[in-house]
Amino acid sequence: MEKNQLTRILYGGDYNPEQWPEESWNDDIEVFKDTKINSITINVFSWSLLQPCEEKYDFSKLDKIIEKFSKAGFKIVLATATAAMPAWMFKKYPDVGRVDYQGRRHTFGQRHNFCPSSPNYQRLANQLVDHLSQRYATNQAITVWHINNEYGGYCYCDLCQKEFRKWLQKKYHSVAELNRAWNLTFWGHTIYDWEEVVVPNELGDAFGPENTDTAVSGLSIDYRRFQSDSLLKLFRNEKKIIESYDDHVLITTNFHGTPNPDLDYFKWAKFQDIIAYDSYPTYDTPAYKTAFLYDLMRGLGHGKPFMLMESTPSQVNWQDYSPLKRPGQLQAQELQAVAHGANTVQFFQLKQSVGAQEKFHGAVIAHSEKADTRVIQEVKRLGKTLEQLPPELLQAKKQNKIAIVFDWSNLWAVNYVAGISKDLDYLATVLNYYHALYDLHVAVDVIGIDDDFSQYQFVIAPMLYMVKADLGEKINTFVENGGKLVTSFFSGLVNETDNVYLGGYPGPLKKATGIWVEESDAILPDKSVKIQFTDGQATAGNLLCDLIHLEGASSLAQYTSEFYQGTPAITKNVFGEGIAYYVGSNLNNDGLKHLFKNIFQAANCPLSITNYQPSPLEIYSRDWNNTEYVFILNLSDSAEKIPADLNLQNYQPYFNSSPNNSNSVEAFGVKIFVSKN
Amino acid sequence: MEKNQLTRILYGGDYNPEQWPEESWNDDIEVFKDTKINSITINVFSWSLLQPCEEKYDFSKLDKIIEKFSKAGFKIVLATATAAMPAWMFKKYPDVGRVDYQGRRHTFGQRHNFCPSSPNYQRLANQLVDHLSQRYATNQAITVWHINNEYGGYCYCDLCQKEFRKWLQKKYHSVAELNRAWNLTFWGHTIYDWEEVVVPNELGDAFGPENTDTAVSGLSIDYRRFQSDSLLKLFRNEKKIIESYDDHVLITTNFHGTPNPDLDYFKWAKFQDIIAYDSYPTYDTPAYKTAFLYDLMRGLGHGKPFMLMESTPSQVNWQDYSPLKRPGQLQAQELQAVAHGANTVQFFQLKQSVGAQEKFHGAVIAHSEKADTRVIQEVKRLGKTLEQLPPELLQAKKQNKIAIVFDWSNLWAVNYVAGISKDLDYLATVLNYYHALYDLHVAVDVIGIDDDFSQYQFVIAPMLYMVKADLGEKINTFVENGGKLVTSFFSGLVNETDNVYLGGYPGPLKKATGIWVEESDAILPDKSVKIQFTDGQATAGNLLCDLIHLEGASSLAQYTSEFYQGTPAITKNVFGEGIAYYVGSNLNNDGLKHLFKNIFQAANCPLSITNYQPSPLEIYSRDWNNTEYVFILNLSDSAEKIPADLNLQNYQPYFNSSPNNSNSVEAFGVKIFVSKN
Amino acid sequence: MEKNQLTRILYGGDYNPEQWPEESWNDDIEVFKDTKINSITINVFSWSLLQPCEEKYDFSKLDKIIEKFSKAGFKIVLATATAAMPAWMFKKYPDVGRVDYQGRRHTFGQRHNFCPSSPNYQRLANQLVDHLSQRYATNQAITVWHINNEYGGYCYCDLCQKEFRKWLQKKYHSVAELNRAWNLTFWGHTIYDWEEVVVPNELGDAFGPENTDTAVSGLSIDYRRFQSDSLLKLFRNEKKIIESYDDHVLITTNFHGTPNPDLDYFKWAKFQDIIAYDSYPTYDTPAYKTAFLYDLMRGLGHGKPFMLMESTPSQVNWQDYSPLKRPGQLQAQELQAVAHGANTVQFFQLKQSVGAQEKFHGAVIAHSEKADTRVIQEVKRLGKTLEQLPPELLQAKKQNKIAIVFDWSNLWAVNYVAGISKDLDYLATVLNYYHALYDLHVAVDVIGIDDDFSQYQFVIAPMLYMVKADLGEKINTFVENGGKLVTSFFSGLVNETDNVYLGGYPGPLKKATGIWVEESDAILPDKSVKIQFTDGQATAGNLLCDLIHLEGASSLAQYTSEFYQGTPAITKNVFGEGIAYYVGSNLNNDGLKHLFKNIFQAANCPLSITNYQPSPLEIYSRDWNNTEYVFILNLSDSAEKIPADLNLQNYQPYFNSSPNNSNSVEAFGVKIFVSKN
Repeated sequence: MEKNQLTRILYGGDYNPEQWPEESWNDDIEVFKDTKINSITINVFSWSLLQPCEEKYDFSKLDKIIEKFSKAGFKIVLATATAAMPAWMFKKYPDVGRVDYQGRRHTFGQRHNFCPSSPNYQRLANQLVDHLSQRYATNQAITVWHINNEYGGYCYCDLCQKEFRKWLQKKYHSVAELNRAWNLTFWGHTIYDWEEVVVPNELGDAFGPENTDTAVSGLSIDYRRFQSDSLLKLFRNEKKIIESYDDHVLITTNFHGTPNPDLDYFKWAKFQDIIAYDSYPTYDTPAYKTAFLYDLMRGLGHGKPFMLMESTPSQVNWQDYSPLKRPGQLQAQELQAVAHGANTVQFFQLKQSVGAQEKFHGAVIAHSEKADTRVIQEVKRLGKTLEQLPPELLQAKKQNKIAIVFDWSNLWAVNYVAGISKDLDYLATVLNYYHALYDLHVAVDVIGIDDDFSQYQFVIAPMLYMVKADLGEKINTFVENGGKLVTSFFSGLVNETDNVYLGGYPGPLKKATGIWVEESDAILPDKSVKIQFTDGQATAGNLLCDLIHLEGASSLAQYTSEFYQGTPAITKNVFGEGIAYYVGSNLNNDGLKHLFKNIFQAANCPLSITNYQPSPLEIYSRDWNNTEYVFILNLSDSAEKIPADLNLQNYQPYFNSSPNNSNSVEAFGVKIFVSKN
Repeated sequence: MEKNQLTRILYGGDYNPEQWPEESWNDDIEVFKDTKINSITINVFSWSLLQPCEEKYDFSKLDKIIEKFSKAGFKIVLATATAAMPAWMFKKYPDVGRVDYQGRRHTFGQRHNFCPSSPNYQRLANQLVDHLSQRYATNQAITVWHINNEYGGYCYCDLCQKEFRKWLQKKYHSVAELNRAWNLTFWGHTIYDWEEVVVPNELGDAFGPENTDTAVSGLSIDYRRFQSDSLLKLFRNEKKIIESYDDHVLITTNFHGTPNPDLDYFKWAKFQDIIAYDSYPTYDTPAYKTAFLYDLMRGLGHGKPFMLMESTPSQVNWQDYSPLKRPGQLQAQELQAVAHGANTVQFFQLKQSVGAQEKFHGAVIAHSEKADTRVIQEVKRLGKTLEQLPPELLQAKKQNKIAIVFDWSNLWAVNYVAGISKDLDYLATVLNYYHALYDLHVAVDVIGIDDDFSQYQFVIAPMLYMVKADLGEKINTFVENGGKLVTSFFSGLVNETDNVYLGGYPGPLKKATGIWVEESDAILPDKSVKIQFTDGQATAGNLLCDLIHLEGASSLAQYTSEFYQGTPAITKNVFGEGIAYYVGSNLNNDGLKHLFKNIFQAANCPLSITNYQPSPLEIYSRDWNNTEYVFILNLSDSAEKIPADLNLQNYQPYFNSSPNNSNSVEAFGVKIFVSKN
Repeated sequence: MEKNQLTRILYGGDYNPEQWPEESWNDDIEVFKDTKINSITINVFSWSLLQPCEEKYDFSKLDKIIEKFSKAGFKIVLATATAAMPAWMFKKYPDVGRVDYQGRRHTFGQRHNFCPSSPNYQRLANQLVDHLSQRYATNQAITVWHINNEYGGYCYCDLCQKEFRKWLQKKYHSVAELNRAWNLTFWGHTIYDWEEVVVPNELGDAFGPENTDTAVSGLSIDYRRFQSDSLLKLFRNEKKIIESYDDHVLITTNFHGTPNPDLDYFKWAKFQDIIAYDSYPTYDTPAYKTAFLYDLMRGLGHGKPFMLMESTPSQVNWQDYSPLKRPGQLQAQELQAVAHGANTVQFFQLKQSVGAQEKFHGAVIAHSEKADTRVIQEVKRLGKTLEQLPPELLQAKKQNKIAIVFDWSNLWAVNYVAGISKDLDYLATVLNYYHALYDLHVAVDVIGIDDDFSQYQFVIAPMLYMVKADLGEKINTFVENGGKLVTSFFSGLVNETDNVYLGGYPGPLKKATGIWVEESDAILPDKSVKIQFTDGQATAGNLLCDLIHLEGASSLAQYTSEFYQGTPAITKNVFGEGIAYYVGSNLNNDGLKHLFKNIFQAANCPLSITNYQPSPLEIYSRDWNNTEYVFILNLSDSAEKIPADLNLQNYQPYFNSSPNNSNSVEAFGVKIFVSKN
């Protein structure tokens, strides 16, 4: 079915009018209008208000809210309120609470704490959503349904254990196949009955801090898949109910984290009408990490724009230190999201709570309830800027020529790896590659392993440790047909259930890369190994150093220290019409930039409008049809020069946060250029 | 009723003659007499000896001990022995044990581990105390009854949960009022029945390390109040029983910690006939912290002298490192307590145990059982000094002109604050202020929020985050009537249940301070913000920087860095007859000393006999009628000069630990002067 | 009975052919033969394969393995497979799983997780061993039976609690005696019934991180003794069953750790036919620590050679960082074991698993399954070297003139000490002494407190905190009869149940040492106290400084800082025919070397062939009859000079890893010399 798309940038965010006297709503509306806020997200944690006991629903307050704010012209993002269960549910049905990693059943408290396998939770949640959607489905103000909230976390209860066994039966069919898949002869773990499978928490095969260590990685990885699937099932159930009343409205849930390690978002993304993301960089998050996350969100939607569903207009209450946003910083940060594909700019929150956990989280309307605060001025300034952006931008579907691969199964599998170096970190490695590309102003898409590689000139897949059955062949075909692959150490090692490919690393990637890796040296945290490119450029690697045998490939760089000095460190293999690059160690940022510049230039591939000239500015573009909007963002607190070779002759100025100094951008300044057609 | 007061300084401490052969008691008595020890504390952990099973009591050993030592002329501090339950109680009545923060029921082990809501514990403890007091109440040697021991710790069992609901009903009357008080609409926590309230441990609303994080601060703070009250009820029950047999004897329990965060000692203090404190500075505790704690103990008793009920004559067994006390150090440290109001000098312990947890805790009589050890020489030296002190000193009731406020509800509330900076620390902030005053030799009283402010010229209340209902008005009145208030950032934010005062910070303190704080910047741990006084003096602030609007106040200092440079950092507001100072950031020690010196001098207030000349010496006095005893204490391990402008012309020498060098004090030296009448 | 001894060095290790297709076995055999591997360890974790359910055993696969490999000429080390229980056992008999220190019953998962008191585990394990030994006892290829695997860990379940009470009854006979032994009057812990004893986990008397803190050290120490005994009983049961079928085959289990703190290996050693050890130095383990552990293993067998049962041919999967072994490093490290008495060189593992916990642990045959890897070349090189070693070496029984004492009860007791300094560490102190001796190339035996001291000229017993009943007299007699004792601070303090000896430290050692220690100063981590030998040599002590009174002894060194400067720091006491040295502080390595050199030279005792000339090389010898094999090992990654005064005139070259540079040894080089007869 075709869903109704957003027709303008939603500007607004989470709002809890039920926490305030109705008389105050008009004052709030005045502030919202003044700051160009045009939408509100409501009902996120209202279950206990909507249903005081199992037998009774009460929508009177919600009716009033929706009527008031829709009449006032606000678009509504309506949450289904199933993320925080009422106290009476725990009392009546203790199984709705989760059993934790330490094996303990939780009682009422917190939020996001429902057992996904609890029939009581499922029944009561679905009933609530049925009532809600029946009642409000026809309301035209409701632009997006927001299911539950920030799904995440796992349960280890007996109900989950039972469902897990069923999930396994469906996947593996026989106990023998399960034994093989998880290599259960190891440590005599062989089972003879599905009932012998035990959840992997601290009382079973797991140990160490939560979800870091396990005796049986196949089990632990599958349990994460199962829990991700179980939570997804809850989402899909709610979605189905809403669609039974209205199949044109956008339905989504908000993704979160950096990213959230609990859910395979590529699997979840398929069921989202639009991707939504809660973005909370800390005071010391480098801008490239936030950019990566936005690119990931755009990638989850196959290049389509996404919702920035939560962000703070001011401070955050749960981070260690939350300095004030400096003048202009709010606008620069929110426009970074827009540059990368956000079609909404939404805050958590529009008005600060008076009590409990998040009372010191920043908001548009602060505890002072004053309408002329510094924060409101900043929000207003941003509101005006957003109004200037063309509505066509909302249709933009971004497609770059370079993709970087990110995969949750790899995240999980590398996380459980016991061996060689405890510093192996899949996300950090992917970010290391993304960082170099970002510094070179090379725009990339972040894609999953099931996405279409053939659309890209380059696919960059560092630390592709787990290569499930058909992925190896897919990669080989991609290269054979002219694609260019960049992969790295600790790739091609295991199959989907974390069993090693025999016959030499990097397993299924040996064919395309033309190498065999015999061993990997672990480099101590404060040490590095010298590496020299064939062009003479010196660099260094850390973490791991692969001892590589060339089997068709040629060497692009070699180690120049340690007993394996003189052996290849980076290789290049022409395979069919394409090329596969293999990076045998964890290069530092300079080394990666040197490598990328060389291979992109060798590919004669004008991917960067700065000719790969690094600068601290972020330069990113969105385009629609043939119109391109180039965002130049200064996300730092000092003025920065625009790179001399930035070629803007085909563009004209569109927006400038500060009219002066055309050759530099002031602290937290933003310039937008539009392509001349 | 009028209680019998102490008539001489008690010198002695914890003693367990039941652990030793009766033949050895005479040897011990000889050492005690030789060192001037005149009292013993006994029976602290003797429950299992006094009651071998529920049906049987056996006082034969205790009879002998009391007879022996009272006949030998020792004053007895008699404990009620209810702090460590016998093993048989756990076996017979498992509910006497606590359920911990992790949700686990404890078995027999440790001590101080009774559930305050257990009817079995209550019944058996009261029966024991009834037997004890019936038996010994008439013994004239018993000078003080010592109830239980170092009360503390919490329980989270079902019995406590039940009692907690009753406690809440009594406080809030209706569920609606509870919902409002704790702001339970947040995260949909609204309850509809008292039975839906759940204890705040890790299985409910709490998270993170023990008692640091909670989703519902109102709940967690009230639970602390409830547990403090529940333990206090146990104390009061025992006290009532003793008083039914003798209503003239002093009854107390020993406070502890730096201070103990579990109990609201201001609430407890009302029920103590004399405040008693166990003092255990570590090797690296700065002397001002110990001084603060003694002033707090004196403040708990409204200026009356207190008991130093425990301290070590030598080493401590539970601290990370316990170097030997250097020659003279014992005397200097114990006289510090006396200077601040102690009427007893008591040790834990008089004789070292041979086995278990505390066998390496220092004692007067060590494992060697020798009578001429270095430690015994030090104890003897101190004994002689104490004998020289005039008995009038025991009646001294100290009243200073400056008070610093300390409040347990604030301690708890700030502890649970989620936001802005994780380094917010109520106690550390109060100590920062105390430290500056101590360095200036300004004597202060430590008072609670319910104490009478009108007795003081200055009330210093930094980080007064929680301002319960009538406190704001009380402060305003105090200033209006001529009082001088010093308060700081992070004050006046919330009411008694941790809900924010709307309309602008510092809430009820806006009136007196004449300012509005719009926002607070969080300063990173290794950073600071520059501040300049109007007199040109430069200083720096860290932790938080308030962005202050003057609403009647004037600026005493302004920020000179960051985007808010030029705005007020410290303000002064003339309000009625008085003045309110507001310090917008966490000043370093130099900045605070500069501020205090200025405002005290401006007040024309001769508070320090050194004219605010800082020195490493501690200078503190006790007075009785019009006689003042000035103690000059060197608590460091090097000789220190006496400040040149110390004005002692109205005093004459009374005691000198070392007769030479009248212009300096040797390492751990002590001088006492007495006022000329 | 006389057991069949090893007749050649076993070279091989853990192998799991059941994890691989039978067709691959021939390839493996080819690699083994090529590298001189002559033995395999099998069946370690095969219980679930051998017994798919309680009613059924299946030995078909094991039959094939044993037949195949014995026919191929391999010696077999056969494990009893009881270390990892099948999943069905947990499902059928939950009591087979342990209850942990946190009080939680564990389910199926991991390994080494059987409750030692579970009758179900005992019955099923014994039945399995009965079947196994009945079936394979007569097989001549089986050279060693390997019972269970790396015993360790404790259980705190109700069954263990019950058995513990029985164990206590047997040891203490009466409750009164138990109360006395554990000093239970302390904190009113007195019990009146055996049923009142509670296991010391976190719900009882223990606190802090696992097995670090306890209120009742006597209880916690006895619980460790009990658990060690309980696990030993399991071992002995299995051994008895095997011996009922064959009483000539060697039976052992593999010791592990650095060393394993859970088991009293001196008690266990008595029941081993040959000591076996799993050795896993980390990348940064200094060579002397590994040498100490090998000497400990030889000491456990009273000087007899031991099995190096596990070691890695390459990397380790569970250490933080596992760099590749450098060329030659494998040979040098394995020959270090042989030099200290190993008669086997066994690897974990011969072939890498494809999945689960240890798949990245190094192996002879790697995942590549290639036969010509770098690791295989190193294994082959070592195989050839081992073939060159004379078979007589296997009979060597090493006896040195110096012994250093190590004792598990001391390890446990010091671990629970609460007091003075948290850095007290028994193992570290013993290693500090061993390190100095190692640097001086002085060969020592590591012995237990029950071993015969009279064989030695010097017995070195630092930090002999716990001195059980007869040990004091044994030491006095040793010295009286001419022995030389070196002991230190924190010695002679407590008896076997951790009760302090009254009358002055070092308790029963006062007599031989001729001193009395009045107090011990705790030295802060970054501080030290100056010490000067009577010969003028300056050194320093840290951790503790004893304040020593000479009672017959003379001073060898004195403190030259702190208030006790001028008092003795190291003393010497001539007692009978012998001498007792007492070291009052924790000397640094230089101080200890100076002390040892002096006292050895004073004893006119030529203990080192280098005349105590330190060097980074390890120099150690094995001898048989009168033939001595001197190993010179360079365990570092740079070439090292041979000490100029190494006297080899009575020796001739036997083996040289590199023929050049007779005055130095290359990185990881090895030279062996043999004595001229």
